[in-house]
Amino acid sequence: MSSSRIVRASVVQACTPAYSLTDTLDKMERLTRLASERDRAQIAVFPEAFIGGYPKMSTFGVVVGDRSDLGREEFLKYYNAAIDIPSPAITRIEQISKETGVFIVTGVIERDLGTLYCTAIFVSPVHGFVGKHRKLVPTAAERLIWGQGDGSTLPVLETSFLPTAERATEVTTKISASICWENFMPLLRTYYYSQGTQLYCAPTVDARPAWQNSMVHIAIEGRCFVLSACQFAQEKDYPADHAVADINARHPDNVMIAGGSVIVSPLGKILAGPLLGEEGVLSADLDLDDCIRGKFDLDTTGHYARPDVFELKANIS
Amino acid sequence: MSSSRIVRASVVQACTPAYSLTDTLDKMERLTRLASERDRAQIAVFPEAFIGGYPKMSTFGVVVGDRSDLGREEFLKYYNAAIDIPSPAITRIEQISKETGVFIVTGVIERDLGTLYCTAIFVSPVHGFVGKHRKLVPTAAERLIWGQGDGSTLPVLETSFLPTAERATEVTTKISASICWENFMPLLRTYYYSQGTQLYCAPTVDARPAWQNSMVHIAIEGRCFVLSACQFAQEKDYPADHAVADINARHPDNVMIAGGSVIVSPLGKILAGPLLGEEGVLSADLDLDDCIRGKFDLDTTGHYARPDVFELKANIS
Amino acid sequence: MSSSRIVRASVVQACTPAYSLTDTLDKMERLTRLASERDRAQIAVFPEAFIGGYPKMSTFGVVVGDRSDLGREEFLKYYNAAIDIPSPAITRIEQISKETGVFIVTGVIERDLGTLYCTAIFVSPVHGFVGKHRKLVPTAAERLIWGQGDGSTLPVLETSFLPTAERATEVTTKISASICWENFMPLLRTYYYSQGTQLYCAPTVDARPAWQNSMVHIAIEGRCFVLSACQFAQEKDYPADHAVADINARHPDNVMIAGGSVIVSPLGKILAGPLLGEEGVLSADLDLDDCIRGKFDLDTTGHYARPDVFELKANIS
Amino acid sequence: MSSSRIVRASVVQACTPAYSLTDTLDKMERLTRLASERDRAQIAVFPEAFIGGYPKMSTFGVVVGDRSDLGREEFLKYYNAAIDIPSPAITRIEQISKETGVFIVTGVIERDLGTLYCTAIFVSPVHGFVGKHRKLVPTAAERLIWGQGDGSTLPVLETSFLPTAERATEVTTKISASICWENFMPLLRTYYYSQGTQLYCAPTVDARPAWQNSMVHIAIEGRCFVLSACQFAQEKDYPADHAVADINARHPDNVMIAGGSVIVSPLGKILAGPLLGEEGVLSADLDLDDCIRGKFDLDTTGHYARPDVFELKANIS
Amino acid sequence: MSSSRIVRASVVQACTPAYSLTDTLDKMERLTRLASERDRAQIAVFPEAFIGGYPKMSTFGVVVGDRSDLGREEFLKYYNAAIDIPSPAITRIEQISKETGVFIVTGVIERDLGTLYCTAIFVSPVHGFVGKHRKLVPTAAERLIWGQGDGSTLPVLETSFLPTAERATEVTTKISASICWENFMPLLRTYYYSQGTQLYCAPTVDARPAWQNSMVHIAIEGRCFVLSACQFAQEKDYPADHAVADINARHPDNVMIAGGSVIVSPLGKILAGPLLGEEGVLSADLDLDDCIRGKFDLDTTGHYARPDVFELKANIS
Amino acid sequence: MSSSRIVRASVVQACTPAYSLTDTLDKMERLTRLASERDRAQIAVFPEAFIGGYPKMSTFGVVVGDRSDLGREEFLKYYNAAIDIPSPAITRIEQISKETGVFIVTGVIERDLGTLYCTAIFVSPVHGFVGKHRKLVPTAAERLIWGQGDGSTLPVLETSFLPTAERATEVTTKISASICWENFMPLLRTYYYSQGTQLYCAPTVDARPAWQNSMVHIAIEGRCFVLSACQFAQEKDYPADHAVADINARHPDNVMIAGGSVIVSPLGKILAGPLLGEEGVLSADLDLDDCIRGKFDLDTTGHYARPDVFELKANIS
Repeated sequence: MSSSRIVRASVVQACTPAYSLTDTLDKMERLTRLASERDRAQIAVFPEAFIGGYPKMSTFGVVVGDRSDLGREEFLKYYNAAIDIPSPAITRIEQISKETGVFIVTGVIERDLGTLYCTAIFVSPVHGFVGKHRKLVPTAAERLIWGQGDGSTLPVLETSFLPTAERATEVTTKISASICWENFMPLLRTYYYSQGTQLYCAPTVDARPAWQNSMVHIAIEGRCFVLSACQFAQEKDYPADHAVADINARHPDNVMIAGGSVIVSPLGKILAGPLLGEEGVLSADLDLDDCIRGKFDLDTTGHYARPDVFELKANIS
Repeated sequence: MSSSRIVRASVVQACTPAYSLTDTLDKMERLTRLASERDRAQIAVFPEAFIGGYPKMSTFGVVVGDRSDLGREEFLKYYNAAIDIPSPAITRIEQISKETGVFIVTGVIERDLGTLYCTAIFVSPVHGFVGKHRKLVPTAAERLIWGQGDGSTLPVLETSFLPTAERATEVTTKISASICWENFMPLLRTYYYSQGTQLYCAPTVDARPAWQNSMVHIAIEGRCFVLSACQFAQEKDYPADHAVADINARHPDNVMIAGGSVIVSPLGKILAGPLLGEEGVLSADLDLDDCIRGKFDLDTTGHYARPDVFELKANIS
Repeated sequence: MSSSRIVRASVVQACTPAYSLTDTLDKMERLTRLASERDRAQIAVFPEAFIGGYPKMSTFGVVVGDRSDLGREEFLKYYNAAIDIPSPAITRIEQISKETGVFIVTGVIERDLGTLYCTAIFVSPVHGFVGKHRKLVPTAAERLIWGQGDGSTLPVLETSFLPTAERATEVTTKISASICWENFMPLLRTYYYSQGTQLYCAPTVDARPAWQNSMVHIAIEGRCFVLSACQFAQEKDYPADHAVADINARHPDNVMIAGGSVIVSPLGKILAGPLLGEEGVLSADLDLDDCIRGKFDLDTTGHYARPDVFELKANIS
Repeated sequence: MSSSRIVRASVVQACTPAYSLTDTLDKMERLTRLASERDRAQIAVFPEAFIGGYPKMSTFGVVVGDRSDLGREEFLKYYNAAIDIPSPAITRIEQISKETGVFIVTGVIERDLGTLYCTAIFVSPVHGFVGKHRKLVPTAAERLIWGQGDGSTLPVLETSFLPTAERATEVTTKISASICWENFMPLLRTYYYSQGTQLYCAPTVDARPAWQNSMVHIAIEGRCFVLSACQFAQEKDYPADHAVADINARHPDNVMIAGGSVIVSPLGKILAGPLLGEEGVLSADLDLDDCIRGKFDLDTTGHYARPDVFELKANIS
Repeated sequence: MSSSRIVRASVVQACTPAYSLTDTLDKMERLTRLASERDRAQIAVFPEAFIGGYPKMSTFGVVVGDRSDLGREEFLKYYNAAIDIPSPAITRIEQISKETGVFIVTGVIERDLGTLYCTAIFVSPVHGFVGKHRKLVPTAAERLIWGQGDGSTLPVLETSFLPTAERATEVTTKISASICWENFMPLLRTYYYSQGTQLYCAPTVDARPAWQNSMVHIAIEGRCFVLSACQFAQEKDYPADHAVADINARHPDNVMIAGGSVIVSPLGKILAGPLLGEEGVLSADLDLDDCIRGKFDLDTTGHYARPDVFELKANIS
Repeated sequence: MSSSRIVRASVVQACTPAYSLTDTLDKMERLTRLASERDRAQIAVFPEAFIGGYPKMSTFGVVVGDRSDLGREEFLKYYNAAIDIPSPAITRIEQISKETGVFIVTGVIERDLGTLYCTAIFVSPVHGFVGKHRKLVPTAAERLIWGQGDGSTLPVLETSFLPTAERATEVTTKISASICWENFMPLLRTYYYSQGTQLYCAPTVDARPAWQNSMVHIAIEGRCFVLSACQFAQEKDYPADHAVADINARHPDNVMIAGGSVIVSPLGKILAGPLLGEEGVLSADLDLDDCIRGKFDLDTTGHYARPDVFELKANIS
């Protein structure tokens, strides 16, 4: 096919090296260069909480009705590992994007005064940091450590990919991000569809097999490309004293987060992945015209909606 | 587990015998008795358009800007095969339900003056006909023959299943129906979730493999049981002159609708099916408490919603 | 002073007997009768989660990124101990109120489809159930089990206390409820002040000494009577296998929630309590004119506000 | 703990010497030097109206509907004791700050054309005068002599404390000021919290015991350090003919303002004070990380807010 | 002149009988009937605080930095003498208006939860209570007892006067009210002019001779009729123990408020009054066309404004 | 009283001698010397259009839709009598000021290319010409001959009066000018008040008695000294052929402009004048502290403003 509306995209399956910001940024640079040089990627999606880390299995010393001092110290440590926007870490990511020419979408733990947020940021090789999305509802124990985003960070960004050696034409598309179980929020997805998202990024740490069903469903429902990047992490990737599933069976190679990164087309075809059991970079050609082809018979916020019966009020600021 | 909150449910995979109403009702009675007697079912879900038929492959003589006389005649025939509510056909279904003790959810082609609707009806062995749902958006060529439902036929019915030989206690639950691609309508689903649906019935004729992903996704998203009943139909099940996929390769055994009926639990576990390549009845025990266990960490219209950011206005009358 | 604008109020310090609804309602009846007969109370405030129970020290099997099956079972049990509104439990409370003539404000765990809420209900001896307030933000691990209330359950109820043997005149006042750490939410408090609350009920399980400072502060800030009812609970009051602070030092008499119920006047004077180390009923005469005397020099939503600089937008429905 | 994020802070309890500007500035210099040399303070907070004086017990000849000529003369005298910003008095305070290296927050009576304001100023040893806050609502008789501030003087100043002999690292924090009963204004406090205040300065002349409750409450509510500096003044500190509580019992040692200066930590712990019955300087180490430890479970303008229900509109210019 | 655009207007000079609401309403009825029957008045303006009373000479026990318990009791008494809107007192005034056919503008002390306001109400014989204005800035010691109105109570009411025996035609005009020293607020007046006020009511208790200058100036500046109603009160009109100017020279006939009610035309001509030294009712014919005649050469919010240089932003809700 | 903040001020009531510039400047010198030598004045205010003349009674040959040649000639003459700024006339006035030590405020007809303006100039004995104000809105027929000033000529000048034989101390104050009916422009006045004017100069030719009311009102409203200088002119003071009120009753002594110059204190006390029926110089001691004494209870752009309700936007350049 000689269509000129093709974007080369990667999803990166990787984990945060023991909460070290420097190591994580180095790792991001290495993997982005890999996506760029090996796969000619124009966009790369990293997992949820890649910057800052996902404290799997921790409870932060919280029980109903009580918090421990140790838990507060753990929170302070986690707080200090998070990043402000803007900050030198953002600058570094902008630099990685600029040097590789790769548009980066990555999960970060964002610090805003007293509250942390599970955020996805968008960094363009041309314009630098261009937007962020804060997770709207943390899941279960995440509610102990992360605040809730709101209508002010729900961007659907119009983005242009510059011509490359392989592709002669500039291509413009729209990008959004939904983090982990946000992908189970039908109104959030509907909002994104209504704004025309075509590259639906889904950074996550949900590595259960059932996750794959949802990625395919969303691609079909939204007639968009789904780019799901999951962490793959083992006990050795966490600080030595971190909580684990079974404290009596600690082993560096025990899997903490199993991966499952995947790329799906608007008609539900799996273009790459799911990748399981290792870190790695998956890439695929995304023919943006497939979004239009799909909307011929299903446009859930267009001809296939019933605004007279169901109206979605989105409080976006 | 000896929980007393279990419902025994069946999905019926079957087709309409050549648009014959009498034959179809007889078939319904036979299959309902099978579900009841063999599987001890308390509820049985039949496919989309089971009563009235799904005119797969037909165009009703319609091209852009023109309609043929022949197509009008075909519509007349189809119209006459449809049923009024109430009507003797409904009475017959009530009788089947009462005699078998099985709550019936079935797709019907409903006639209302000059317009046909693709409808699902709910029939209780105790209360008879208790509600109906008209498909909100017909898909593609269906728009040539069916009208659109509205907010007046979106029931979520609180239903009690009487004690049986196997189960000593009356069990109360909530039931809804979404027909075929309505299942891709996120706002409709959200509305049903918000009303507490636990037995989410999905009569369909979509037999593509990707359908399975959506059924699993919906079960997880809504923390409800998904009961998807698809038709399995071959060319021999249609009138002799009916349109087919390849007019040059007509064969009575050619598959028109491939099936794929399935039952999924609120945590995404497939309890029965998918059934492919034949008619049949699938059954499973549904532990209603699994809905609560699932909502512990995901209630998309409760603790996992963000009504401040996204509000669903439903125009229900 | 022979003012006729006096209300006799009680706060009840008590715990939920091992999640048993029947026992809890019996206990409520006994304590309400005590307040009525011994103290001539016209209103009695019970603690947070008195109906339904406060699962102190439990984690419901939740760690970051994972939930256990056991935790889901614990949630199911807790879910089943909660009450619907309306329901027979509500009817029973209405009956207690009617028979004793005592207006009851009590914490309940409210069940609404798939989500539980930490709710305070208002029950009048004359009108029965007259309103409810759902906690807006659960604290820490409470976020694992309770949803968030919203602007539809923030009543400030105008209430009349009928003449009694001791007091010849009907007295009208306004009542609101803020549950536990909601009392640290300055905008919620401001909203209540702006609606004229005079009996500011604060059901809680926060038994830390610092709580007393906040109760006095709020009374002064809002020029209202603060009626704070805390649970007093020991390990023996919980089911045998319930989580405790120190699993190696289980003892039936170990304190789980230490109490601290108190009644404070609009000028910051402590009228009764704090009660520590035991269950009990505290009572005091509330001279409603003290609200006016206090507002003479401080009315934070009247003459002491600056609506030109700070405007509180309340999304109340 | 060897945290490097510690600030050494003082609150100064002192009164204005008989409205004499020169004497007051000399006193400020002496007390600032004491805070610096004895206690190694990096910041010192002085009471409300320390510069200019607090005319306790005076009525300025005002009754409802009438003003006396004598009252106008008293006002003129008071007006002349107030200071302009900038003015030589400000220059002098900048010099004191620069020479001692102590960041100064002090109450002043500010003159702006025809109106006086009760103002708090912020003076940095490096940058000199960096901001001011005018009291928004004067209390009771203060309304006879002071105007109202507005949204243009509500700074929350990001401030860096330079390394000292004791501490090797520069520390950055945020500072605000609320004067006397402004501390009872929940919307003002909320605004300050939302801007990230960590050193919440509360210059006051409210010496009632109940004041302590509010200081602890605010520290907890805002998860900030509260630095409350109150005047301690006796009749001899006022001009000879000044009004007193009991004109028949004049005595130089009679207490006019009783003090009560205090420093409280973000978790509600009293770090120094309350100081009663004398002038003096209280100091404490403030570990700024305690703000983060505290926000772990309470951030009233972050994860513990409900902006969908309550929105604070601040008209700041 | 036989113009049909004439309104017959009265200003009533009277005081509040010793804070008695019943007596005051009786007095209002008597004086309104006098205005109606003797003078054929269609509108009557009563003084500031006529309902509720003006506590001249009182200090409510307030000195800078302190309030006495006695003062709080006095405030409570004053609070109880104030009226809610609506309330039986309003109903009574509506009845007086209806029975006499006189449109009433009167000062009232309005109670709104914890704060009192100095309010002017507008009562129509046809429509009853039609609006109110709360004084924006209390003067001096009034700030101790009254809150501030805001942009929500600044009505300029279009009002029709029905035909009478003397005048055959219905006349429509616009009415506003500015209370006492509000008349010195140039922006408030400008706003009223900009809304077309023609009957500029000025209820007051300012009885100084200089007041007359302002009334004439405003009439000219605004090209409107000024109807200023002042109280005339003696010591005997207050409760026996009320504060007085000279406690050593108490005499029932001592003047507390000296009167000075007056009616001025849009060109500055005094049509009635000033009335001094007694209670009474002044009346005059107001030829509304005089407003137009005056605006020929001066329309300060029209052709004589400079909106390019000075723009008045009014925050009216 | 030995206050050192007293300024000695004069208002000069005089007319322009028949449009003769030289004669007018001579007259100005003579009257300034009189004010200085006889009255020890430090400032003298001259009437509107004193330099250039006020062509009272003229129509300049203008009717609706037509202008006469004669009128054009009359304008030419008037144009030529006006002065440029700077110009020799200005230099002469600077000299008069310097020699007498009197600060001069005077009305002039200012020529700026093709347009004339009715201007007030400020001339200091030390600094010479220091500012000017052009009338913003000419009244009625003035619009035929004068242009409109704008926001670039609205100075409020801080001015120092040097020590004199009588007074040992330099006194600093603020001066502004409003010409004739500009004094009826409430927004202009408000702007001046907001800039702190204390010597409010009101050059005018409005000699109607009602003018006095406005001067008193403004002094009270602005808590400033009002210095109103009006022309006193008779027919003989105009060129022989000048228009008059009654052409049939021409008489040299007929009054054209009747005077009424006056000096009023900030509390509304008339300190000098009004002067009627003759030319002359009025003088008074202005105790600047009276502005402060007055602002104690009224500061219409400070504590007595409501910037949240009414905001004055001034477009000053």
